[in-house]
Amino acid sequence: MDPFFEIRVDVKVHGSREVSQALYSQLKAGIAAGRLAAGARLPATRQARRVFGVSRNTAAAVYEELLNEGYVVTRQGSGTFVAERLPGRLMPQSPHEAPPKFRLNQFWLRPEIEASMGFWQEAPDSGSWEATGRARLDFRPALVDSRLFPFGVFRRVSAKQLRGLEKRPATYKSPQGNQGNFHLRTAITRHIALTRAVACAPADVLVTSGAQQAFDLLARTLVTPGETIVAVEDPGYPPMRVAFAAAGAQLVPVPVDAEGLIVDQLPQDARVVSLCPSHQFPLGVPLSTRRRRALIEFAVAHGAAIIEDDYDGEFRFADSPLEALKASDAAHTVFYVGTFSKCMLPALRLGFIVAPPWAMRTLVAAKNCLDWHCSVPLQLAVARFISEGHLARHVRKMRETYRRRRELLLKLLDAKLAEWLTPLPSFYGMHVAALARSAVDLEAIVGALQRSDVRLHTLRRYYLGRPTESGLVIGYGAADPAQIARGMSLLRNLLRAR
Amino acid sequence: MDPFFEIRVDVKVHGSREVSQALYSQLKAGIAAGRLAAGARLPATRQARRVFGVSRNTAAAVYEELLNEGYVVTRQGSGTFVAERLPGRLMPQSPHEAPPKFRLNQFWLRPEIEASMGFWQEAPDSGSWEATGRARLDFRPALVDSRLFPFGVFRRVSAKQLRGLEKRPATYKSPQGNQGNFHLRTAITRHIALTRAVACAPADVLVTSGAQQAFDLLARTLVTPGETIVAVEDPGYPPMRVAFAAAGAQLVPVPVDAEGLIVDQLPQDARVVSLCPSHQFPLGVPLSTRRRRALIEFAVAHGAAIIEDDYDGEFRFADSPLEALKASDAAHTVFYVGTFSKCMLPALRLGFIVAPPWAMRTLVAAKNCLDWHCSVPLQLAVARFISEGHLARHVRKMRETYRRRRELLLKLLDAKLAEWLTPLPSFYGMHVAALARSAVDLEAIVGALQRSDVRLHTLRRYYLGRPTESGLVIGYGAADPAQIARGMSLLRNLLRAR
Repeated sequence: MDPFFEIRVDVKVHGSREVSQALYSQLKAGIAAGRLAAGARLPATRQARRVFGVSRNTAAAVYEELLNEGYVVTRQGSGTFVAERLPGRLMPQSPHEAPPKFRLNQFWLRPEIEASMGFWQEAPDSGSWEATGRARLDFRPALVDSRLFPFGVFRRVSAKQLRGLEKRPATYKSPQGNQGNFHLRTAITRHIALTRAVACAPADVLVTSGAQQAFDLLARTLVTPGETIVAVEDPGYPPMRVAFAAAGAQLVPVPVDAEGLIVDQLPQDARVVSLCPSHQFPLGVPLSTRRRRALIEFAVAHGAAIIEDDYDGEFRFADSPLEALKASDAAHTVFYVGTFSKCMLPALRLGFIVAPPWAMRTLVAAKNCLDWHCSVPLQLAVARFISEGHLARHVRKMRETYRRRRELLLKLLDAKLAEWLTPLPSFYGMHVAALARSAVDLEAIVGALQRSDVRLHTLRRYYLGRPTESGLVIGYGAADPAQIARGMSLLRNLLRAR
Repeated sequence: MDPFFEIRVDVKVHGSREVSQALYSQLKAGIAAGRLAAGARLPATRQARRVFGVSRNTAAAVYEELLNEGYVVTRQGSGTFVAERLPGRLMPQSPHEAPPKFRLNQFWLRPEIEASMGFWQEAPDSGSWEATGRARLDFRPALVDSRLFPFGVFRRVSAKQLRGLEKRPATYKSPQGNQGNFHLRTAITRHIALTRAVACAPADVLVTSGAQQAFDLLARTLVTPGETIVAVEDPGYPPMRVAFAAAGAQLVPVPVDAEGLIVDQLPQDARVVSLCPSHQFPLGVPLSTRRRRALIEFAVAHGAAIIEDDYDGEFRFADSPLEALKASDAAHTVFYVGTFSKCMLPALRLGFIVAPPWAMRTLVAAKNCLDWHCSVPLQLAVARFISEGHLARHVRKMRETYRRRRELLLKLLDAKLAEWLTPLPSFYGMHVAALARSAVDLEAIVGALQRSDVRLHTLRRYYLGRPTESGLVIGYGAADPAQIARGMSLLRNLLRAR
């Protein structure tokens, strides 16, 4: 089709100056978009009336303007052509550069976002994300040992539930998550009653795409952009902080000591406090009974909401009297965030929020806007995995597995690394934090390990403010006893060589 | 444990006035949180030093203040007790009311959000969302006929892929989606090359939790809150608008006519234009070739991004020359949004964005913050479903199924309903829009149908601005020929009775 076919100026509705302006803009836009290609011949001015609907003189004046600006060239005796080399700002855009006037939301370009993206993956820039996913020895926290996951069982319950889905017509479901017999919200209430003594009804549960979506959802509902002050543990969990920063919260880091979050240091105007009371991330210490009470009282007195991130609460080792904060939430201030990433598999991307009734409607509205609801086949599979007792069985097995690994790790830290590292006490989970006893350059040590394809985090990446402690976070979720022994031996060699 | 055990004032670090203030606050907070229960006896003032660490006089003064404010009562000769009836603002909070000083993000409480939540479900308030999910006859648009979905095949590919997952250690994956042989991003490029002539590489694809998450992700990356103007079709798709409004965009409705979005009426300062070029939602008209060109040129001239929502592009019926806008996106301005909700099942919650390279990094950062990545077992299952040819087969079958339903519907509209309704031309999809020929009260008609458990939408709910047309949106995705015949007959009876 004639590339000039679409260019037409309606003289009737334009004044004379506007007529030439309209033709000028249309030609320029056509050139910029590449539709009027380099070298294309413009219609002769004597055809201007027929082609463009404007007078010859108007067309001639417009051509001259385009010529002056470098969009067209003339060739003696043969006419006017689209220039081969366009002026800079009209050059066909590089696919890797945003259009000149377009501005992406600048939040995502901040360096700390980049850092949090690489939180689990050391080198997402290397091109292939998956290729960097697995190290020879991996001591990063919050990884799980998927080698021990009962895939066969999960496959069977998935297939069984898909057959059930087939019988009932599918439609859009509640954003809150599946409900009914053998459905996920009911199963979740049973799971957390059993493992965490949290008593709640299916109506209090909202299913999310992992804990990360729970944080995003809470950020977008509890935070009024530019107004709400959110207190976070420092050191803490960077991806949670990103969600709150993205929602326009003002983040205030609050230090942590041997009793957990120092409640006394909460800013008086904090309206949200996000923390891991059972197993501080990354230090591992539990929030003391005294601090728990003070925190609830702070929330009640200041009208603040508490976010309890209970990422590995299923794996409790000591007969500690400390239960989930949510277990005694008489004041309806606690949002409990749970995940199936640790007790099942991170790749499932399934988690949940147990919320106070006053906030549920708002959370459901936001979840609906974020992605309607979580995948139904996945919800069905996990629901049956729980209700048939497979999750309880797997948790029991992994608790024993992680307990043995933890004991080995603590033994090795004591026997071989006590000169450099002191482990912090903890009762839960899949990692131990150990503080440096002297001025060891742990970043250099970890860098050397990384070059041998051994992954180990120092505490530094967990701080929002200036780091106050130097130490290591040693995860044993993905490292079996032999790997723990090899890793600690490598670590010792490096520390001795300094 | 003694409920007063935790209440202690460190006299050394407080001035004298602060000492009594500290005791007062702690006691009041304990009462408010319910820890100091109604009727609990406060320690005698002569024990103040031992229990609280303050003098007897200080304690007496604090008790008096609490007495004056109604938090405690005294009983002659037996001491001071927590009041049975607390002052209003300290009453134990109702679980259904937010704490007095807490303010949820007010955006989610707007009436239009509520309306968009009920977009697919007429009555989410009725308690059980699922119970309202299925009507006797359902003509809502964008539902699919899951009775015809090959569940057996999907179950087999899911199981096969789960076995594959078992063999490779699971870890956190790229937020962009699975990549590699038989992986989802590769499969998507093949699917859209085949069905939509969109040529792109796996690196241009980002996997989302349905089209809704694609809109949320685009909103959060393309919009700078309070600055960015987003032009949307009016009538249009309300849940998409909610995502942009939630991200702080200023939405400008732009009217639609027989050629689709009226590009001339785009505000000059629009930086994002969101539309359905192939099958306008809900009117069904395609964007004309002329308007397509004008739109691309508008985007290039103004540095705007175009969002192409191609929700049912797989189901094309005529040999229309119109392909996806993204198929010829030389200027790198088009974000193509696809979904598996229509060509597979909505319950899967899987969709994708094909983005210009300049925006991918930002989109990945945001997806990472939203929920890391989509469920791996689900991505694997859909990838294999595509790469083994099952999706192409299912689309072919459903295209034929929907074509027959569409022909029947158009025939019935012409033969029995032409007196009241005129269908708009369309070439794609699973619904037809029909404009009212005269002043029929369609809301009343649809209300009457609803009372007979027949679901049918009027155009009204799709408008952002004042409705300019009156009509019906008749979906045949979930209605078979017999149901279409029954529904149109019911509709005719109601229209005749008016």
